[in-house]
Amino acid sequence: MTKKAIVYAQSGGVTAVINASAVGVIRAAKQHNLGPVLAAQDGLTGLLNDQLIDTRQLDDSALSRLLQTPGGAFGSSRLKLPDPDEDDTPFAKLVAVLQAHNVGSLLYNGGNDSADTCLKIDRYARSRGFDLQCIAIPKTIDNDLEGTDTAPGFGSAAKYVAVSTLEASLDVASMAATSTKVFVLEVMGRHAGWLAAAAGLVQRDPGDPPHVILFPERPFVPEQFLAAVEAAVCRHGYCSVVVSEGIRDEAGCFLADGVSSDAFGHAQLGGVAPVVANLVQAQLGVKQHWAVSDYLQRAARHVASATDVAQALAVGSAAVDFVQQGLSGVMVGIQRDADEPYQWSTVAVPLSAVANREKKVPDHFITDNGFGITESCRRYLRPLIRGEAYPSFGADGLPEYLRHGRRGAI
Amino acid sequence: MTKKAIVYAQSGGVTAVINASAVGVIRAAKQHNLGPVLAAQDGLTGLLNDQLIDTRQLDDSALSRLLQTPGGAFGSSRLKLPDPDEDDTPFAKLVAVLQAHNVGSLLYNGGNDSADTCLKIDRYARSRGFDLQCIAIPKTIDNDLEGTDTAPGFGSAAKYVAVSTLEASLDVASMAATSTKVFVLEVMGRHAGWLAAAAGLVQRDPGDPPHVILFPERPFVPEQFLAAVEAAVCRHGYCSVVVSEGIRDEAGCFLADGVSSDAFGHAQLGGVAPVVANLVQAQLGVKQHWAVSDYLQRAARHVASATDVAQALAVGSAAVDFVQQGLSGVMVGIQRDADEPYQWSTVAVPLSAVANREKKVPDHFITDNGFGITESCRRYLRPLIRGEAYPSFGADGLPEYLRHGRRGAI
Repeated sequence: MTKKAIVYAQSGGVTAVINASAVGVIRAAKQHNLGPVLAAQDGLTGLLNDQLIDTRQLDDSALSRLLQTPGGAFGSSRLKLPDPDEDDTPFAKLVAVLQAHNVGSLLYNGGNDSADTCLKIDRYARSRGFDLQCIAIPKTIDNDLEGTDTAPGFGSAAKYVAVSTLEASLDVASMAATSTKVFVLEVMGRHAGWLAAAAGLVQRDPGDPPHVILFPERPFVPEQFLAAVEAAVCRHGYCSVVVSEGIRDEAGCFLADGVSSDAFGHAQLGGVAPVVANLVQAQLGVKQHWAVSDYLQRAARHVASATDVAQALAVGSAAVDFVQQGLSGVMVGIQRDADEPYQWSTVAVPLSAVANREKKVPDHFITDNGFGITESCRRYLRPLIRGEAYPSFGADGLPEYLRHGRRGAI
Repeated sequence: MTKKAIVYAQSGGVTAVINASAVGVIRAAKQHNLGPVLAAQDGLTGLLNDQLIDTRQLDDSALSRLLQTPGGAFGSSRLKLPDPDEDDTPFAKLVAVLQAHNVGSLLYNGGNDSADTCLKIDRYARSRGFDLQCIAIPKTIDNDLEGTDTAPGFGSAAKYVAVSTLEASLDVASMAATSTKVFVLEVMGRHAGWLAAAAGLVQRDPGDPPHVILFPERPFVPEQFLAAVEAAVCRHGYCSVVVSEGIRDEAGCFLADGVSSDAFGHAQLGGVAPVVANLVQAQLGVKQHWAVSDYLQRAARHVASATDVAQALAVGSAAVDFVQQGLSGVMVGIQRDADEPYQWSTVAVPLSAVANREKKVPDHFITDNGFGITESCRRYLRPLIRGEAYPSFGADGLPEYLRHGRRGAI
């Protein structure tokens, strides 16, 4: 009997380490002598159009480069499937493609929306008696996935945010005597402030930046914010602010209103840093600068966390183990076994416990004034950014990434 | 006779490697058994207020950390001196402070404005018969200094811009099938597009990003820009844009006027990236994302260019050599002796050939369509971002920088 193929698909916003999960899958499948791993071109979109890439064309050297390459090498998708009870057309199409390629398992690499998609496919396949194992591989820089200690992609983005906050703060501190006194860095996080929280890892001693962190878990109250900024400028000579893109005012309105929304109906945010920075300038009369790191933070493989890379590889590899164990309708979760030294293992988590849920920063991780993180938050976050995992650099001074964006690169 | 002291001052916007120049000065002075190096607290501002830091308090371990720390460890200043013929009050004050500390030389670490300040002080001291050697040490991420092949600080910022462009482009390429198709990165450069040009180093093969570079040396013509973006999206599936903060329209007006707010405190959103990105969305109807790297690009010591660090050290060291040679009224210039392999040496350049001038990106470095760099530009830029010079990282996953921003850290 021919060995069943494994389909691997990337979904949702990509990360600096999602390709490491792909490498985890491909290497494990090869090691266990399973069927071919077929990667969906542009995720679900390509899958529906029968665009599958046979990863056996990637030799060891290509896989080593893929391991250190940010973005989604096979292309990702924000396509959302309908409720199969209302419209099962795409599901039928999907199953037809999978059957045509003798596929036995679908490994779906994404976040909470993707877990929902994976769960829908799992249920549809069961209802039609199609023997398909659906396994989600976690990924999100937002760290808002339930059922896992953290999601690969977050640790590297968190490290980028912490390093950038430290560096930019040293810069503004140098200038504060005669120039810029307030610096605002905007980071991703629509509803959960995990990346903003990560900036708090910079704080070791009193007075260390960031002096104000703005979480989407707390309403933005201009007077309180301005008072905190003013106090920091007074005490330390400058103020370093890190703001989540998704902060809202007391009425629940986003400070920066999206002009558009993505395929899942989420508002596309961005641009809250200038709003906050200009408020400071107008009300306090001090010079400010602001930065919006946007994709830079989730693509920054050059400053990846070694812990994150190891976990990204492990969840890919564990997904293949789950295939062999006959599991379906589960996500690979990372379980924290110890804080210091950080120990973790991979476990199977039911998709129904993950899909469409959102893990926010809990109350006890945020200081009483709402502008900082607590020691327990720091204990949770610290191991996730630990260790460096530099890509190799070429003679041209640039990382030797697999240039998957260029047509025909993979 | 007591040895004459050397005063070292940082001036203007700081960089990822300006402290390496400070280390170059301090180590060279110690090696040649010269007088103490006194660092001005907050540059010229502290100098006028008699706030000098005796750098002999920094041991070898502190100097090693300083070498890898971004920002200006002693504080910088944007203070401008008047024309001494109109108002010589600050000059007289300055000379009094220097005489009180038995200072024989002033090493002024800055850009073209700073070269002007250094020249003014040099002329004033001469006119008053005060024996003071004034030597400028080059520094600017803008690379707009005349009289030197490049200025320390630029190479590291350029490497950051190129690496970030590559990484973010891989990200957007992954998403383009169903989501973001155009990404815009704003980089510094009010009048000279050197940092934007550096993004062009990413291009190795046809189709490589960035697909459009917007230089302040070229007027922004919306129709031409939109046509270039549309062509890239059509050909490559996505478009990566790098824009200099200082681009202007055909009438010579800045597209984005940075930082201001109206009388009512309403935010006037600065940043040219959102302006350009929203134009794309409005006119072409494709989803866009944008980033503004601001201080992150000039503080990114974690991805510094080894060439840049070596040059920053060398210009500091050379300034001390110039003191010993009895020079004054000069800047340490970097002279390119060969392209491949890159060879360079330090030379003395008259301050009058540097002060208040601005080196723009020359015509033959920009492609005919105005949106890219030529091979000769690439040949010029390539060695400047070459080599990695990682800071050491601690067990907390963060660079072990000297935390100079915290009061009392130095």
